[in-house]
Order: sequence, then structure tokens, then C-alpha cells
Amino acid sequence: MPEDYNRGLSTVQPGRSPLLTATAEQLVLAGRRFDTRGWVMGTSGNFSVVIAREPLRFAITPSAAFKGELHAGEILEMDDRGAALTPGPARVSAEALLHVEIVRARGAGAVLHTHSIWSTLLSDRFGDAGGFAIEGYEMLKGLEGNRSHEHREWLPIVDNDQDMTRLSRVVRSVLDEQPEAHGFLLRRHGLYTWGADLPQAVRHVEILEFLLEVVGRKTS
Amino acid sequence: MPEDYNRGLSTVQPGRSPLLTATAEQLVLAGRRFDTRGWVMGTSGNFSVVIAREPLRFAITPSAAFKGELHAGEILEMDDRGAALTPGPARVSAEALLHVEIVRARGAGAVLHTHSIWSTLLSDRFGDAGGFAIEGYEMLKGLEGNRSHEHREWLPIVDNDQDMTRLSRVVRSVLDEQPEAHGFLLRRHGLYTWGADLPQAVRHVEILEFLLEVVGRKTS
Amino acid sequence: MPEDYNRGLSTVQPGRSPLLTATAEQLVLAGRRFDTRGWVMGTSGNFSVVIAREPLRFAITPSAAFKGELHAGEILEMDDRGAALTPGPARVSAEALLHVEIVRARGAGAVLHTHSIWSTLLSDRFGDAGGFAIEGYEMLKGLEGNRSHEHREWLPIVDNDQDMTRLSRVVRSVLDEQPEAHGFLLRRHGLYTWGADLPQAVRHVEILEFLLEVVGRKTS
Amino acid sequence: MPEDYNRGLSTVQPGRSPLLTATAEQLVLAGRRFDTRGWVMGTSGNFSVVIAREPLRFAITPSAAFKGELHAGEILEMDDRGAALTPGPARVSAEALLHVEIVRARGAGAVLHTHSIWSTLLSDRFGDAGGFAIEGYEMLKGLEGNRSHEHREWLPIVDNDQDMTRLSRVVRSVLDEQPEAHGFLLRRHGLYTWGADLPQAVRHVEILEFLLEVVGRKTS
Repeated sequence: MPEDYNRGLSTVQPGRSPLLTATAEQLVLAGRRFDTRGWVMGTSGNFSVVIAREPLRFAITPSAAFKGELHAGEILEMDDRGAALTPGPARVSAEALLHVEIVRARGAGAVLHTHSIWSTLLSDRFGDAGGFAIEGYEMLKGLEGNRSHEHREWLPIVDNDQDMTRLSRVVRSVLDEQPEAHGFLLRRHGLYTWGADLPQAVRHVEILEFLLEVVGRKTS
Repeated sequence: MPEDYNRGLSTVQPGRSPLLTATAEQLVLAGRRFDTRGWVMGTSGNFSVVIAREPLRFAITPSAAFKGELHAGEILEMDDRGAALTPGPARVSAEALLHVEIVRARGAGAVLHTHSIWSTLLSDRFGDAGGFAIEGYEMLKGLEGNRSHEHREWLPIVDNDQDMTRLSRVVRSVLDEQPEAHGFLLRRHGLYTWGADLPQAVRHVEILEFLLEVVGRKTS
Repeated sequence: MPEDYNRGLSTVQPGRSPLLTATAEQLVLAGRRFDTRGWVMGTSGNFSVVIAREPLRFAITPSAAFKGELHAGEILEMDDRGAALTPGPARVSAEALLHVEIVRARGAGAVLHTHSIWSTLLSDRFGDAGGFAIEGYEMLKGLEGNRSHEHREWLPIVDNDQDMTRLSRVVRSVLDEQPEAHGFLLRRHGLYTWGADLPQAVRHVEILEFLLEVVGRKTS
Repeated sequence: MPEDYNRGLSTVQPGRSPLLTATAEQLVLAGRRFDTRGWVMGTSGNFSVVIAREPLRFAITPSAAFKGELHAGEILEMDDRGAALTPGPARVSAEALLHVEIVRARGAGAVLHTHSIWSTLLSDRFGDAGGFAIEGYEMLKGLEGNRSHEHREWLPIVDNDQDMTRLSRVVRSVLDEQPEAHGFLLRRHGLYTWGADLPQAVRHVEILEFLLEVVGRKTS
């Protein structure tokens, strides 16, 4: 594996659980994939997988690292208050609280947050309306549970906020009001989506980003 | 080969024929190529190659797998009713019936189905007209049998439908009505094209996607 | 090196000259580079390097091959009438005559022909004017001999033609009329550019394609 | 490592300091990254890292090389007058004087200059205004020191000039007038940004290029 721009993170971390290690490899691959597509530019984005339910534990990407250049040893274990349990200087993003909220609201097994050009543009364009509908596309069948292109998917947009406790409450209320939603946008910020497991969540990112570009180009 | 997001598919499958194995490697490469170009996002798309004519047998990609992350051992053998002959839990897409129909109508040796931004947009924009013409471009010579850029290619658009038996009949009638067509679009869905063999079909995907982007940007 | 979609071309070709072999490796790399950028879709494009002047001999890419999947052993030796000297079934493109013409008119050591979205669109948009000017961009300094962004580059556009003898004459007259031009477009077809050697010609492709996209987006 | 298009530069250079060598590897990776994204087309762009302060010394990329194909042995050591200290024919770009000026004005540890489509378009579109503001985007937090998306970033635009001494003075005065700016554009030319170290500077390139595309598409 080539050297990378991420520093200050030991790649030798004895005592990591096999589950964390196996999950970490998958998160590294997801990071490379999204980096290639330009969805995690400039160390943006964060990804998590639930590795235990009682108590709730996550494998999660470290803050301030290039997501396309991660090593498995850099993936952190996190508790349900957003605190890193893995020793060392690396920290999780303050946005990790949103991951916890989504897992609690949806029972998700993986949560992915990406920053793309089209999610940024559309979250701005349709922000005042609080969201927008995507309807009639075959790709909608890639969102778990959808059986037909005739599905109408409402993608909620939440105003951006640096107060994560307050933002978590707003996100939770949107998730409760829109129980069928497969993701949401933070305004001028990016996409959150999730899945029963990491492959499903990766699929949801790709499906939603594809549809965002289609809607974005169609309505330009 | 790196690990991937595809799961639940054994990579050790004794008893696979050498022809299936050799073909499978080529399908894996096609998948990587199209994934890099963004044409099979979120496990979309499916690809097949005819490996026997009497009785008709296909090598075909499994449903619900990331097409850029396939292993050769995941490619399935399929009969002419769309049933997987390869033992194991993996299934072919319900759309496999369209592959069978295309092979019967055209005598094709390979059928490729991709989902791109531009095919989605143009199939919507020109859907009511039932298709559109592409004319005057040198790249048209990349469609088998064309000798000049002065060729006029009609690209039919078929309404999307989740009833595959009904959709197969509609596709068959369009293929019969447009004997010169090298592909068709499913509305708000994607592209189908084919070739005498896999390299020719891959070429047709690239040629048609190139022309779709040209037409899409020109008519925006 | 991975297997690829190109077939029917032996990779073991005794008697190839060391110069052809060394040049062939460079052409393979150029092909991969342009394929990644989407400029040689569907086996389009062709590239040549002069390997001898007396008599004039070229290393040139074979026709009908994916340019991002070439092996060095597939690169052909060609004479100044566009005939392949390398034994085997592979042939050079009929457009090879344009390479010969450009080498004769400009004394170039390498000629590259690519098909991009933006060259196709702009060659159409400005075709009736016979070309267009690119002026005021720093990237113009990447065209050999230019010392300032204040340079005004005229990019001629030639009507496409399947008669290569006739097209060669038209190209020659345009090259003679525009002695300062670093390239030209064939209408609804693509870009030709050249250089003293392959790296310079590769640089010219990238500089011109960059400028084409800038002009294309600015004038949309 | 594959062969490349860069020539005339020895890859065996005894007497290079370990710090230069280590830094060079990081610059090679940055070059590949930006080349993939299309920001250093046609040998454009240049990157430097400060490797000593007293006297001031840089590791810097050579002029006229493809930035995605660099070898570590091609990275040069440079003094504070823009002169290469590494023996051999390779030279640094005349623009290296801007790197020196930026390091002096900002105390930066790394300076990166890229040429993208969107920086070219926006530097032209907003050039008469001398710059433009980027405001309200979460990605602004990726610029060092910003704590909120509510930040308003002014991106100055400086007229392009081939007289590097004169341009250096103008750049210095803009940097002094805009002490909060994280980068600037040269008109119809490209982006300069910097950071405390190379990873921070790489992050700033990606953040600013992302925001340029967002602003560019929004205002088209």
C-alpha cells in the first residue's frame, strides 16, 4: 500500500478486535471508492459500521483524514456518545453523533456521509422547500424495499448547524416524520444515507448520488 | 485482487466449464471498465455472453452485485428461460429475459445493459417521441456495419415496465420494427446494446454512451 | 498486465526492431492515459511515432483495438503509404494517411488523434466558421513555441470525409495556410495534434483538450 | 513503477538529503492525485514544500514534467531566489518565485499551484471584480482556521503576467491586503493555495476546487 497524506495515526494497534479489523478493511475500500468519484474531497465525509449492539459500538473513520488514503489501522472504535475508545491521538468527527442518531432511529448497520457537487447544489436549490421528490427512475429500485420505478422518494433537506446536539434532534425528528426516507441532505453540506450493512449503505450512496446528478442536470 | 463489497457468493465452484470460466474473466474486466466510467452505479447493470447455442446458454452477471467488484467465480450460467444453472444462492436479474430476447432477435453473442446519467436524461427527454436520431458523427462508424459518419442511427426508447414478460414482447416488436438499430433505451432506466461478441458489445456501449453525452450536451 | 478485449493480435512477434519495441511501450502508456480521460472510447483514436526518416517509418496503433488495453506487441510498423510492415492480421486505420501528411507538412515526430466530447461539440458549433480562436489563457503556453498567455491560437476545423486521399489534400492545404497551428479538428469527429516527439504530442493533446472544455463551457 | 513521458531527468542522484527524498515521495503522490482529477494537464502546475527555514530551502517539482508521472528522484531542491540547487539539466518553473513570496508572506510549509477547468472559468468570469466570495458551505470548514459554514471566504483574483518579478509584487500586496485568504486565482490561469504542511495544502486544493465547481455550476 502506498504511503499517504494521513499522519499521526499509528498503523500498529494491538488489542483491536477481529471484528473491528475486518470491518476496517471494508471501510478503507469504501473510502477509496468514494474518493475516486470525488465525493470525499479534502478529508470530508465520514463512514461508520455497527460492530456491537449491546452496548452499541461502531467502527468509524477518523476525523481529518483523506478518506481515499486510509489504512485499516486508522479506523476507530466508538461508543454511543461519539467518544473514541481506540487509544491514540485520532478523533472521530463531531458529526458522529448523527451516525448514532440514525442507527437508533432506523436500526441501521452502517451510516455513510459524503460531500458531492450535486448534493451541495440541490440541497441549496431545494432547501427552502425542505426537500424534493425523485420519481419514476429505475434506479430508485436500488433503494432497499423499493420494487418499482414508479416509487416516489422524498429526500428531506435539513438546515446545516454546527451545534451537533441541536442538529441531532432535528435530524431525529425528520427521520421520524419521514419513515420511508432512505437518506437526507444537510443544506449546502452533503448526503447522509445508511443501510442494514455496509454494502447496502454503499449502494444507497451510489444510487442517491446518481439520482441527484440526474435531477440536478434535468432542472439546471 | 482486493476484497470487495459483494458477499454471499462462493468463489470456489467446482464443475464450472472452461468456457464459462474464460468468459467470466472477460465479464469481470468489462464490469471494472464500466464501473470506472460510472455506468453501473449501485449494483445496477447486467452483462451476458452466449456460451452455447444448442441449447442456448449464457454466462451472465449475478443480480445485486457491484459490477466493478466481481470475481470470475461469481459469473453464472443461465438457460434460455432466465434460470441460473450454477448452484448456489446467487440469482440473475429478472431483466435477463431481455438478454434472451435480444439474442434471439439479433443473433447476438453478447448483451450489455448499463445505467448512465446521459442515457437516463435522454430517454426521458425524447421518450414521448419513442426515440431519437443520431446523425453525422464519426463515432457512428464504431457501430458494426456503419461505413460513414453520414449514417443516421435511430435509437428507440421503450417505456419502462416491471413486468418482464410484457416488456420482453415490447422489446421484441421494437427490435423487429427497427432491424438496423444497434441498441435501445428503456425510459428513465438505461441502455441495452449487443454485439457479435463481448468486445464488439463493449465497443457499442462506449460508442453509444459517447454519442448520448454529445447529444445531451448539445440539446441542453 | 491484465487480459483485455483486444483479440486476434499475437503478442509474440520476433524480428521487431528494438526502436519499435521501445516506442511501442510509450504508445501503450499514452493509450491508457487517454482512455482514462475518455478520449478514445470504443476503440476510437490512433497514435503514431516516427521511428525512421529515410525511408519514413512509423510505429502506429492498430485499428479496431481498445487504446487503453493495448500491448506493446500489438503496435505496428508502417511505411509512408499507410501500409503495415508488421506481419499478421492487424491493420492500421485508413486515417493513417493523415499522420503521414502531418509528418511531412510539419516535420513532426509524433501524431495523436483523439475523440473527445468537447472536440466533437466545438467542431460542430464552430464548423461553419472553419475554426475558432483560443486567446488569453495561460495553458496556451503549453503549446510548443508559445511564450505568453496573450497568444492567439487559431484552431482550424476541417469537414469530415471518408475519402482519405481527398481529406489528406484538404488537411495539407489547411496546414500550409495555418503554419502556426498546433492542431486541427475534424468536424463532428475529433482532434489531431502532433509534436517533435511523443511527450510533446501528449502534452499538446492535454493542453488542447483542456482549452476545448474551457471554451465549450464558457460558450454554452 | 511504470515508465513515463518525462525524460532528461536522471533518477539516480547521489547526495540528495534524506529530507528531500522523504518529501519528494509525498510530492509524487500529490502529483498523481491531482493528475487523476485533471488539475495538472499537459505538464501544468507546480508544487513545493519548505525543507529548511534558515536558509530557506524548498523541495519543488521540475518544470515541463507530467505531474502525474513524476519519480521522487526528479524533485529538485531550490533556494529562496528560485534557483535549483540539485545538479542536472532539470529546472524549476519561473513561477517558483511566487512560491517563495507565499512562504514569506504566510509562513506556509507547502505551496500548490493547479490548473483546473473551473478555476480558469471563474477567474475569467469574476476577474474584473478582483475576486469573489464563497459563503455558507460546510466545505469552507476544510480551510484551516474556519469553524463554521457561515464563514465568508474571499478568493482574490490577480491578473496574469509573464513578468514574474512584477507578478510577485502584486501577489504579495494582495496577500497583505487579504490576510485571511487561503488562496488566490491567477486570471485565466489557475489556483494557488498553501498550508502549514503538504497534507494541509493538498486539503486546501481539494476544498477550493470543490467550491469552485459548486460556484461555477450554480452561477452558470
